Amino acid sequence: MPDYTPLDDGFEQRVRSSFARQTLMETIEARLVKVLPGEVEIQIPFRADLAQQNGFMHAGIITSIVDTACGYAALSLMPAKVDVLTVEYKVNFVSPATGHTLIGRGKVIRPGRTLTVCAGEVVATGDQGEKLVATMLTTMMAIPDRGDFANIDK
Amino acid sequence: MPDYTPLDDGFEQRVRSSFARQTLMETIEARLVKVLPGEVEIQIPFRADLAQQNGFMHAGIITSIVDTACGYAALSLMPAKVDVLTVEYKVNFVSPATGHTLIGRGKVIRPGRTLTVCAGEVVATGDQGEKLVATMLTTMMAIPDRGDFANIDK
Amino acid sequence: MPDYTPLDDGFEQRVRSSFARQTLMETIEARLVKVLPGEVEIQIPFRADLAQQNGFMHAGIITSIVDTACGYAALSLMPAKVDVLTVEYKVNFVSPATGHTLIGRGKVIRPGRTLTVCAGEVVATGDQGEKLVATMLTTMMAIPDRGDFANIDK
Amino acid sequence: MPDYTPLDDGFEQRVRSSFARQTLMETIEARLVKVLPGEVEIQIPFRADLAQQNGFMHAGIITSIVDTACGYAALSLMPAKVDVLTVEYKVNFVSPATGHTLIGRGKVIRPGRTLTVCAGEVVATGDQGEKLVATMLTTMMAIPDRGDFANIDK
Repeated sequence: MPDYTPLDDGFEQRVRSSFARQTLMETIEARLVKVLPGEVEIQIPFRADLAQQNGFMHAGIITSIVDTACGYAALSLMPAKVDVLTVEYKVNFVSPATGHTLIGRGKVIRPGRTLTVCAGEVVATGDQGEKLVATMLTTMMAIPDRGDFANIDK
Repeated sequence: MPDYTPLDDGFEQRVRSSFARQTLMETIEARLVKVLPGEVEIQIPFRADLAQQNGFMHAGIITSIVDTACGYAALSLMPAKVDVLTVEYKVNFVSPATGHTLIGRGKVIRPGRTLTVCAGEVVATGDQGEKLVATMLTTMMAIPDRGDFANIDK
Repeated sequence: MPDYTPLDDGFEQRVRSSFARQTLMETIEARLVKVLPGEVEIQIPFRADLAQQNGFMHAGIITSIVDTACGYAALSLMPAKVDVLTVEYKVNFVSPATGHTLIGRGKVIRPGRTLTVCAGEVVATGDQGEKLVATMLTTMMAIPDRGDFANIDK
Repeated sequence: MPDYTPLDDGFEQRVRSSFARQTLMETIEARLVKVLPGEVEIQIPFRADLAQQNGFMHAGIITSIVDTACGYAALSLMPAKVDVLTVEYKVNFVSPATGHTLIGRGKVIRPGRTLTVCAGEVVATGDQGEKLVATMLTTMMAIPDRGDFANIDK
């Protein structure tokens, strides 16, 4: 894992401010617990109203936190005045999401001017320690920060 | 797209009953609007509290409905007494999720005894008609319906 | 499946000329059998020297033809003076690659100025007709045609 | 990265013997350079006849060696009398494959009775040292070793 030097000294503030605008994160009580250059961590408490049919946290919620973590890991290495967009992701689910807390971790594998590749993982913590729940490989894209990209043409 | 013959005549009831147990679906006001053999459709209204940083629906929520649609498309072709689990998925996001309603569609590409491959898509409907938001390729797995697979070993 | 209008009337020649420079295609005896706007088809004969451990065509070879088909489907809709690069792909293998001929088909799902999303499939033909072997979802990128992008920064 | 204990003491011989039956590996002059429990490495020389349109090694060849490395990393942890099958993979390409040697590395992230999740990477070595070319996330499946699974029903 290489050490990255951010292009923008204000990267942490930029990530925190964008995170604060993600209403889904507030809805699911997500907290941004780590913001380093190229590495971001987000955690949520288990909640009974975000489950799939067996009471485990739903794959879409698991994905939400690791997508956001990877997106902000990518954004942390981008220049100021740029926003980040998820191009695509792939997630493998390796054990049921049970426990007390779910942690999504995103790390940059390869930064780029337009595209950044990140790896992510989600772990669940509970009485038996930490277990791996899901693993992600994803492509993020830098786009001009227009505050509105409804007409974006990738 | 082939026509599929369900192994279990009660497939629709089985899908509806499992869907009703997904608390996330209730939380995001999802409705199961189509249940055919190998094909399921789910829709949700746009909600301001499920957004990413620009006010578009969050990738994780988009993914939630198409994951659930694909999972139940797979389950609809499985025998009775079996539950379905998401092994993995890959999603490409092709336009921002804006509009009035988001529709997730899942279809079986290849059913199997253990693994079923599905394709999904999410479209947004609004004043300008329907637009493609995301496309999914996913692997689903049949597992014994124990009502609890906390210890499942895939 | 929408009909696409190519930006460059010379798209077919451009695709054929680039295909002719792919030495791997010659090595595996690949033929470009269809070049339409947003849709390309490539076929290869089964060969005993391109197999995995059970004598089926190797996943990497299956992937080679559908990657090339998707790349050129994307290129067919790009302007002149542009080259195409595979950003990423995801492939599901649904049956063993056996038969006489393997056909890779690539279609554009969503064209874009920088990124184009394609869907691909590989079918095997033999005495029992056609069967689906693999299905692909992929992201292609337009880059300036420098004839050399060893230093490309995505 | 956890240490794994193989279920079958003869895992290395089993991997080497299966590798020797992959005719594609011989065709591209691949060598099995590391076989550990849950970790396998394969290398090939650069060859001008396996290229894409700009003279870089073709994505399909890059994928071939890391697919095989991941498959055998998975097989190394499976019991005797079992064969391995690629269910699906996702690959991101991060720099052009140029240099002298291409190395594919596969590691098990999560072993399972039926499904095993692996991560892979491909690096190119040359005059400037080692650079990352591609990264893979994949699902492998254990199947009975029948020596013929033409009729396999996953």
